Formats: sequence, structure tokens, C-alpha cells
Amino acid sequence: MYIVYVQVHVKKDWVEEFIEATIENAKNSLLEPGVARFDIVQQQDDRTRFVLVEAYRSFDDPAKHKATDHYQRWREAVLDMMEEPRTSNVYFNIFPEEESWG
Amino acid sequence: MYIVYVQVHVKKDWVEEFIEATIENAKNSLLEPGVARFDIVQQQDDRTRFVLVEAYRSFDDPAKHKATDHYQRWREAVLDMMEEPRTSNVYFNIFPEEESWG
Repeated sequence: MYIVYVQVHVKKDWVEEFIEATIENAKNSLLEPGVARFDIVQQQDDRTRFVLVEAYRSFDDPAKHKATDHYQRWREAVLDMMEEPRTSNVYFNIFPEEESWG
Repeated sequence: MYIVYVQVHVKKDWVEEFIEATIENAKNSLLEPGVARFDIVQQQDDRTRFVLVEAYRSFDDPAKHKATDHYQRWREAVLDMMEEPRTSNVYFNIFPEEESWG
């Protein structure tokens, strides 16, 4: 499993638009066979900060995701909404096991 | 929903023991009615770093979790395995909706 945590810091006037565009991308991403999960969470003490948790079934799936129309649309839509560049880390799943990720 | 991301940095000689103790805690935590998810992920480029994702159904559930025997056992077991103090952030779920978290 190839799990990407993307840290996002959004300009404060663009939080609602960011949420809308990102939910649209998450829904479409879950239709990709390689995407097991696509969570969006918003930090409680700073609502301009989000984490996107993208759980891919294999190493090749993130590249397939980045080639989709919905990812490209999201990327363009949120380009000017960022307060600073996104950062990310990549993880293995330890628990639960693979088949329980979605 | 009350989602806690705990960042953990483990001493390098204790990684296997940490994983074992934390899986045990995660399995028991999922039996708590207030715990929707308890994920453990390990950073791919630094295997001493982990994130625990604890998704609670309500604001009161983290305190109930901390009062359990299995949490207390885990806390004691990993005390000397930490390279540095754990840090955490708390999030709302944006996507998916509540009932899809487990």
C-alpha cells in the first residue's frame, strides 16, 4: 500500500471554494480502481489547514491518478488558493491490513 | 467527528516492538464503540516515523479511550521507545461523511 498524506494550507478567503473543489476530486478519485481511500480532514484549531489522505493500492497508482482529468481540474482550480506550497509524506500501511482500507 | 493525527518518532532499535504494541492497542481500540478508525502508518523514507490516525465518533470519546486498560498498557509499553515526545493535531472530517469512516 502506498499512502500519501498531503498537508495543505489554504488562503483564508478561499476555504469554502477549496473544500468544494477537493470533495469533487475526492469523489472522482474513489472511482479509480487504484484508489482505496481519499479522505479530506480540516484542522480544528486552524480551519485553513487540511490533510488529504490518499491511499493507493500500488506504487503505480499515484501516477495514474495524476493523469486523470479530475486531478488536472482540481490542480488548476486550487492553484491560486494555496497560502504556501503543499507538502507530502509517503507511508506504508501497518494497520489495518490492505483489504480493510476500502 | 473528532480525528486525531499523532506523529510518532521511535528510537531505531525499537521499531518492531513499537509496531507490535501499537497493533495490539489499535485492535483493542476498534472494539470501543466511540472509535471509528485506528490506522497505523509508517513513513517510507524513514521507518522510525509513524502516524496514528484515531477517528472518534464524538468529542467525549478520546477521554474514554485514554481511560481503557489497553491504552494504559500501550502508553507504558512505548514510553521508553520514543525518540522525542509525540505531537498531535485534531481535525474535522470533510470527506467522506461520518457514516463512511468505519
